[in-house]
Amino acid sequence: MNRKLRMGMVGGGRGAFIGAVHRMAANLDGQIELIAGNFSSDPEKSKLSGGDFYLDPSRVYSSYEEMAKREGAKPPGERIDFVSIVASNNLHFPVAKTFLENGIHVVCEKPMTLSLEEAKELKAIVEKSGLVFALTHNYTGYPMVKEARAMVKAGKLGRLLKVVAEYPQGYAVTNLKEQENTKIGSWRADPKKAGVSNCMADIGIHAENLARYISGLHLEEVAADLNTFIPGRVLDDDGSVLLRYEGGVRGVLYASQISTGDENALHVRIYGTEASVEWHQEHPNELIVKFADQPRQVWRRGNSYNGPEAQKNTRIPFGHPEGFIEGFANIYAAVTEAVRDSLKGEFKPGTYDFPSVDDGVEGLAFIEATVKSSAANAAWTKLH
Amino acid sequence: MNRKLRMGMVGGGRGAFIGAVHRMAANLDGQIELIAGNFSSDPEKSKLSGGDFYLDPSRVYSSYEEMAKREGAKPPGERIDFVSIVASNNLHFPVAKTFLENGIHVVCEKPMTLSLEEAKELKAIVEKSGLVFALTHNYTGYPMVKEARAMVKAGKLGRLLKVVAEYPQGYAVTNLKEQENTKIGSWRADPKKAGVSNCMADIGIHAENLARYISGLHLEEVAADLNTFIPGRVLDDDGSVLLRYEGGVRGVLYASQISTGDENALHVRIYGTEASVEWHQEHPNELIVKFADQPRQVWRRGNSYNGPEAQKNTRIPFGHPEGFIEGFANIYAAVTEAVRDSLKGEFKPGTYDFPSVDDGVEGLAFIEATVKSSAANAAWTKLH
Amino acid sequence: MNRKLRMGMVGGGRGAFIGAVHRMAANLDGQIELIAGNFSSDPEKSKLSGGDFYLDPSRVYSSYEEMAKREGAKPPGERIDFVSIVASNNLHFPVAKTFLENGIHVVCEKPMTLSLEEAKELKAIVEKSGLVFALTHNYTGYPMVKEARAMVKAGKLGRLLKVVAEYPQGYAVTNLKEQENTKIGSWRADPKKAGVSNCMADIGIHAENLARYISGLHLEEVAADLNTFIPGRVLDDDGSVLLRYEGGVRGVLYASQISTGDENALHVRIYGTEASVEWHQEHPNELIVKFADQPRQVWRRGNSYNGPEAQKNTRIPFGHPEGFIEGFANIYAAVTEAVRDSLKGEFKPGTYDFPSVDDGVEGLAFIEATVKSSAANAAWTKLH
Amino acid sequence: MNRKLRMGMVGGGRGAFIGAVHRMAANLDGQIELIAGNFSSDPEKSKLSGGDFYLDPSRVYSSYEEMAKREGAKPPGERIDFVSIVASNNLHFPVAKTFLENGIHVVCEKPMTLSLEEAKELKAIVEKSGLVFALTHNYTGYPMVKEARAMVKAGKLGRLLKVVAEYPQGYAVTNLKEQENTKIGSWRADPKKAGVSNCMADIGIHAENLARYISGLHLEEVAADLNTFIPGRVLDDDGSVLLRYEGGVRGVLYASQISTGDENALHVRIYGTEASVEWHQEHPNELIVKFADQPRQVWRRGNSYNGPEAQKNTRIPFGHPEGFIEGFANIYAAVTEAVRDSLKGEFKPGTYDFPSVDDGVEGLAFIEATVKSSAANAAWTKLH
Repeated sequence: MNRKLRMGMVGGGRGAFIGAVHRMAANLDGQIELIAGNFSSDPEKSKLSGGDFYLDPSRVYSSYEEMAKREGAKPPGERIDFVSIVASNNLHFPVAKTFLENGIHVVCEKPMTLSLEEAKELKAIVEKSGLVFALTHNYTGYPMVKEARAMVKAGKLGRLLKVVAEYPQGYAVTNLKEQENTKIGSWRADPKKAGVSNCMADIGIHAENLARYISGLHLEEVAADLNTFIPGRVLDDDGSVLLRYEGGVRGVLYASQISTGDENALHVRIYGTEASVEWHQEHPNELIVKFADQPRQVWRRGNSYNGPEAQKNTRIPFGHPEGFIEGFANIYAAVTEAVRDSLKGEFKPGTYDFPSVDDGVEGLAFIEATVKSSAANAAWTKLH
Repeated sequence: MNRKLRMGMVGGGRGAFIGAVHRMAANLDGQIELIAGNFSSDPEKSKLSGGDFYLDPSRVYSSYEEMAKREGAKPPGERIDFVSIVASNNLHFPVAKTFLENGIHVVCEKPMTLSLEEAKELKAIVEKSGLVFALTHNYTGYPMVKEARAMVKAGKLGRLLKVVAEYPQGYAVTNLKEQENTKIGSWRADPKKAGVSNCMADIGIHAENLARYISGLHLEEVAADLNTFIPGRVLDDDGSVLLRYEGGVRGVLYASQISTGDENALHVRIYGTEASVEWHQEHPNELIVKFADQPRQVWRRGNSYNGPEAQKNTRIPFGHPEGFIEGFANIYAAVTEAVRDSLKGEFKPGTYDFPSVDDGVEGLAFIEATVKSSAANAAWTKLH
Repeated sequence: MNRKLRMGMVGGGRGAFIGAVHRMAANLDGQIELIAGNFSSDPEKSKLSGGDFYLDPSRVYSSYEEMAKREGAKPPGERIDFVSIVASNNLHFPVAKTFLENGIHVVCEKPMTLSLEEAKELKAIVEKSGLVFALTHNYTGYPMVKEARAMVKAGKLGRLLKVVAEYPQGYAVTNLKEQENTKIGSWRADPKKAGVSNCMADIGIHAENLARYISGLHLEEVAADLNTFIPGRVLDDDGSVLLRYEGGVRGVLYASQISTGDENALHVRIYGTEASVEWHQEHPNELIVKFADQPRQVWRRGNSYNGPEAQKNTRIPFGHPEGFIEGFANIYAAVTEAVRDSLKGEFKPGTYDFPSVDDGVEGLAFIEATVKSSAANAAWTKLH
Repeated sequence: MNRKLRMGMVGGGRGAFIGAVHRMAANLDGQIELIAGNFSSDPEKSKLSGGDFYLDPSRVYSSYEEMAKREGAKPPGERIDFVSIVASNNLHFPVAKTFLENGIHVVCEKPMTLSLEEAKELKAIVEKSGLVFALTHNYTGYPMVKEARAMVKAGKLGRLLKVVAEYPQGYAVTNLKEQENTKIGSWRADPKKAGVSNCMADIGIHAENLARYISGLHLEEVAADLNTFIPGRVLDDDGSVLLRYEGGVRGVLYASQISTGDENALHVRIYGTEASVEWHQEHPNELIVKFADQPRQVWRRGNSYNGPEAQKNTRIPFGHPEGFIEGFANIYAAVTEAVRDSLKGEFKPGTYDFPSVDDGVEGLAFIEATVKSSAANAAWTKLH
């Protein structure tokens, strides 16, 4: 198929962080072009944003419902091939549902929905639709994360024993003092838009997903202590969670938005009987591998000793750092593969390396279980 | 007083790790000489060890009881000024009690006793004796730990919010496969000699103590999930603990002996509203200080900007790494100060910078609370 | 101007590393679209590559001369706005000259030409043309490099004393053993295509340029010892250079392709009387700043304390690593600004933050001086 | 021999840095006791210092000549077994000569003498004496340095290609502004006491020695550019040197005392055809090993995979950092072995792992060659 894929976007207008990241990630490889969007619930802002991206004004919509209907009605090759949903959490479910029902493939931000119930409903819709649905748990896109996962799968760590996942950020600490007025403060802290959790739903879920992606383990139950340090808030801005995985594997996870001075310090360690792996998001080109009684190993992206999964997700040679956008773009590259397959009638669900609707369901199960456990004074709570 | 202090030792014979460390720490500054000891419960081994250290054979004893009695009976200046207790956990209490009752100052390894009850009894004995009693929570001896504590005390971190303390080691993972036969494996895993906990009592207690030393906070309650991965053992070799400190400060602590490939990775982070501090035992000459919205700072030992507490505990200029033994020796230097004051009749309890019998009581309270909580399926458990 | 800029490319066909990087850098911000090219001197390969990039076949050319002529003849808005030259070193000069003479703005890979003489001739052509000419000394595009430069300019380092620039790579060490047959081995080692130097012209020049960019200092003379370790080669694959800058500033630079196990370890340190700065290309999001008698500072990209130059070149928040492509894309972003200004008749030469034809002249002066010095047994050799 | 060795000291009185380090290093293992000294050329200061160390006043001398004579006249077992010379550079030769001529083993600070001529004379004296002579190039005492050396010796790096040695310090930068009045400023900058070089003789020589120790290579010639930045000084405070080793191995070395903010950043890299090693003095417990096309390795002190040389020089388990004093003490431990052998009549010159009089000769050859080369505008200058 000798053309770029055509992307639409819902949300992500002027000033939005994550929408800009999605666009850069989609641009990077020259395989996707943005041609339509409803960039804001405010029609004027949506229009202005469309201009920023040099779109044909007739493809800039005032509502996502209109966009889904009109794009879905165009013939293939003219209409958008897929939509990226980067609006606030509460919109993920209705927007995804609407586009799927109009026959359009979906890329969706996390958390997938506001509740586990919605998540399960969306799963049913996706499965029925036969369409591509990808969730941007973008940290799984980093090559050295894929290397870690491949090592675990190949049994190099032996039998798994323990998981340690942490995600401290400090940006919210300023809200302890000031009147809260930033956008990121407002909607993420608002239960109507963010759901039952702020911190766990925003970043704890990434730590949980990443640990699951690398370890391949199902999380069975949690005992959580969530905290709200910022006055006037009802949702969590910090929390620690004891973890029990299948097969007796134990762990601990914590996430925080009030860890002063930390930036985006997602960090996962998986311990096995033979070796352990350790990956820091802020130094993503390295994977630390520790075998018992051997020199510590630092696996670096782009080398010939990297496995096929990491190599497939690598663009430039070793020593030339790849970062956040490249990792994100790897999700889009896998989606591109799936959508192109679908356009050729060769879509093979479950065979692509991007987070799926099942990851979305697991994520919501994690969020709801931690919130429930914390409300019950850290009582052990099952995910399912 | 124009002489070195005279030290005796109980435990620490040939092949013992911690006894050798104590001797090197005591030797370092040329202020202390080892002149007597009961180095093993095996009289022959005690004698051979005494020879290794060039001791007068008449000062090498077959039992600690004999040693305490005979040394205590000698006149000051001839007898040992203090004893170092480096025997297995179960002996700490009876040996310390015996020497104190014979009027001899005591340096004691942690955990101070086998139980909280013993710990409280020892506290009473120490207070009644008017003698010096120091516990070798040696990690508090590092200069940059003292710098961190001074920063917290001076209010530079603002109001404290959160504590993260971790202590992963991997050495025990070999026991998952092999027949267990190393000494360190055996007595620490033996409830009779180690008490109610292996991992928490051996290293978790260090993490708890260090967090308390730096933060100055009282730990009120814990919810713990302790694990035993090594087959055939009854005591824990891993565990994670949710922490609630006074004043709403929250935290998480974990310790492990089965974290494959980790060595001695004690790591403490204290977060406040204005700044956070982070210290890694494996890079002890640095303290990472993170103020919100400022460049990250790396405070390094030996610089003129270090505070008086760090400077007092520094021997050599910046850039010349000081390590574990120097940190340990700082405990001995503080003990030397106290014992010399006592010999001059100027002992001022509570004014010296070494861990005290109160730290010992807190440590045992922590151990017992984590064990109790874990047995109750991670129920919140108060320390006192 | 409500459209993307239109880019052409010379070189960079299937399998070429640097051409792919240029395309990704140009794609990233959604401001540039590739619409034409002569991707190889082999017309068939050029055509296939054009297909890979979804180009209109009529805009894929068999020679750069044809491309320059035909594109130059199209009206503005239809023709390419600028060309990126990513062919082998020997082609930089003739291709750049040809496009400039056809009225097309130029982005050119380094080294700018094969000789200092050519470089000076190109400078005259550029100045006469009134067109945009940018050289992709891409490492100057990193935000924290710009931060370092701003610090020096603001006098925060005091009077400069010393420069240390190093650029070790190890990739060529395999050629010590094997028959040499990789492309990168062949043309870079071929004097006809690479010029008088391999290692200094490929990477030494980056280290020199970066030190100059940050320090703002003119390099006056060099004493160089260049080495050829790989059998059968005539050009250098390693070398060390003593540096004398204006104003008594001294320095040392080394570059190497046979530093086994090093990847792309470009590293620059600038020392002044008040402070020093240190930047590693493999950890580009950090700048280490060392003031005498103060805690070491780690300046991190994306924070509010970053200066305007760094902030302008930052796309995503702190803690989300930006890498090589983003730094590269910052050159393209500055070019975009200049070309858009030119299209509006507002081009202000010398006011944009991209490496210029003058940097190209300095680079060739450096290469020729090091080669001459080394041939004269490390005799001091002036650049001009 | 059932006693500690008896040490004397020349220099190192109150306030001296390096004398204190020697005493701590000698104390550490409980194998050596300080019993005599001439701690200062000022008899009163010598006496006070002797009191600080609890010495018998009859063993505290007013001059080194008196000390050598009176100690040398005592019977073995009563007299000092060896002397440590920690006085200023100009005294090393006469003091060492005097003690050797009185039959006393010698440990001597570097640089061994003021000139190459003196160094050669001392070599003759040592060889004639049959006594132990050790030079405290202490950085060779670190276990991971020994590991590196063992790797090179075992051929693991393949054929050596390149050496990079650097030693930046920044402490002297304060002298750029202030009136110079610190002791370390004065005598090291005084040609009468320091010799022909300040920076190269103080720290450049350590970098040269360490590179030689690890690589096993003879340095044949140098081209040096030494600098004096501090006004009013005649000796160098900074310098860079091109290196040519035997067998075509090339290198670069620089040392500096005006590298603002650097502490004691000695750093050596040795590159071979198969692998390279990299060691930083400020992180001494790690050795970075880079094989082509393999994950980077971090060899850490105290592990069972360490070779016998490193293990012999290790006191405490992995993860418990050993530092500068421990490395220094390893020189004393090797001297202890040699002196004990000598006392038993079993001294085997050349078989002990401490720097010898030959290292002293090489060091002076290096200093004189760099100074001569720099004076000749960086002309290549042979060491011998």
